[in-house]
Amino acid sequence: MAVYTEVTDEALTAFLADFDIGSVVAFRGIAEGVENSNYSLRTTSGDFILTLYEKRVDPAELPWFLGLMEHLAKRGIVCPLPVHGRDGAALRSLSGRHAAITTFLPGVWPRRVRPEHCAPVGSALAALHLGGEGYAQARRNALGPHGWRPLLERSRARADEVLDGLSRELDSALTGILATWPQGLPIGHIHADLFPDNVFFLDGRLSGLIDFYFAATDILTYDVAVCLNAWCFEPDFSLNVTKARAMLRAYEATRPLSEAERAALPVLCQGAAIRFLLTRLYDWLNTPPGALVVRKDPLEYLRRLRFHLLARDEHAYGI
Amino acid sequence: MAVYTEVTDEALTAFLADFDIGSVVAFRGIAEGVENSNYSLRTTSGDFILTLYEKRVDPAELPWFLGLMEHLAKRGIVCPLPVHGRDGAALRSLSGRHAAITTFLPGVWPRRVRPEHCAPVGSALAALHLGGEGYAQARRNALGPHGWRPLLERSRARADEVLDGLSRELDSALTGILATWPQGLPIGHIHADLFPDNVFFLDGRLSGLIDFYFAATDILTYDVAVCLNAWCFEPDFSLNVTKARAMLRAYEATRPLSEAERAALPVLCQGAAIRFLLTRLYDWLNTPPGALVVRKDPLEYLRRLRFHLLARDEHAYGI
Repeated sequence: MAVYTEVTDEALTAFLADFDIGSVVAFRGIAEGVENSNYSLRTTSGDFILTLYEKRVDPAELPWFLGLMEHLAKRGIVCPLPVHGRDGAALRSLSGRHAAITTFLPGVWPRRVRPEHCAPVGSALAALHLGGEGYAQARRNALGPHGWRPLLERSRARADEVLDGLSRELDSALTGILATWPQGLPIGHIHADLFPDNVFFLDGRLSGLIDFYFAATDILTYDVAVCLNAWCFEPDFSLNVTKARAMLRAYEATRPLSEAERAALPVLCQGAAIRFLLTRLYDWLNTPPGALVVRKDPLEYLRRLRFHLLARDEHAYGI
Repeated sequence: MAVYTEVTDEALTAFLADFDIGSVVAFRGIAEGVENSNYSLRTTSGDFILTLYEKRVDPAELPWFLGLMEHLAKRGIVCPLPVHGRDGAALRSLSGRHAAITTFLPGVWPRRVRPEHCAPVGSALAALHLGGEGYAQARRNALGPHGWRPLLERSRARADEVLDGLSRELDSALTGILATWPQGLPIGHIHADLFPDNVFFLDGRLSGLIDFYFAATDILTYDVAVCLNAWCFEPDFSLNVTKARAMLRAYEATRPLSEAERAALPVLCQGAAIRFLLTRLYDWLNTPPGALVVRKDPLEYLRRLRFHLLARDEHAYGI
């Protein structure tokens, strides 16, 4: 779940007084989300999401995230739009946290991915990549390849508690990934976390993208690799080539991949797998008893990583 | 949080096809609640709550709870109203769980109780007690006095892990409470869990009561004692007599207490305190690592219990 910070009704009323969106009608914590506290907020003028930014988010980066969402929304990407207070500021303070109100998006995220979800995700991802052009500032990807070795070091001593030999396997895989990490591929603003719970569908159509708080400036095709990992594996950890092909073809219909980008897919997918494996491993080893968050199994991404390590080229992904 | 059971979009669509409430527009897990999985559901015809009943609820008792909510709603108590399917049934199945849709109530539960909340709670509780009359079936209160000794036995061996001497203190207190538990007081349907997170306010007025899944047939004034414990203590565990008096006076304006009920307030409050102490103690000792639920400190109720054990009569509560 994600309600780490409680908001008193007095504080909420005072907070809303700085906006032109009416007064509170309903206010419920949202179970989804891991990083921040999210509330569903209904006012007399409509529905909104109130987010309180928790410890993992660097406050100095919040204007970048909110600015990206505004930039993308103006370019026709359906994503939450920050609501500005009467003084013009969207990023504000509430209950000792940085906080923002964004618009509410209709739709339901797919609990079980079907092949027909994958083409819309590919199209939306390509549109997001093109839509991000012109957003001038860059944000370094703290969870990109430069971050993976330090992340592994934080878990290495206890990694074998999760699986015997895991520490050595990760060390070896990471060395190979970093040695062959592609240089010179097109860079842009990426979502970097476009998992199913961040994509809404309504009446069979993609209705919006949410949760841009891992967004960064990095290799665009790495974002494709994240989505291949997140959307195209079956519960038995086999790659569903139909899903992968649908996603890649739809992506390419909007933003064609260069030969170099296609050739880099296996190592980009390895990198994406190890990135989620490493954060899950750290969380697995460090989630205290009674925590509010469900620990996600890091080994699901070890299985994906092993697949990608065996992929000889982009044909492994159906193209 | 409370989303233990995920619902796929296909299952949700099929489920809604059995109702006359349109098709899904939005579907989000709700963070509040501990016992069941709750979703905020918006359809093309309005807003609803979808509840999936989890392990702690006995399926055989669900019709009683839903029936009570319908009975109360007809009597003017603002509470969730079960929505019936086309076949007339409100209690249905979804994702391997019993499930029901109820109406959405506007309002916000008070994160910080102020004195002005307490009179409306007292009035609403009395109205609920009167409104429950005529609902014919009784439900034994599994968490009433007969349940407390067995509950203590389940935690006794490890109680002193929480506080040295706790086992003996609880044993002694419980023996006294059960020996002086009142007989012959008016019985009716009680909410039994009317904590602040189950009471909504809107524009300074009480706008609804939720979560009837601990409701039972028991001493009406015991329900008052639960509310005194839940609403009238300060963070330093002192009783706020202003709050208690406001609650009791407002209750009595709708349903006056007899002399015997007033005289029983101290022992009823002791019982209510030990009831929440015992369930919290059990949960504290048995909540597994990685659990979705925040463990609530049982000792908050030990402090209340000690207060009530020193209360000589009802004047301790401001009346």
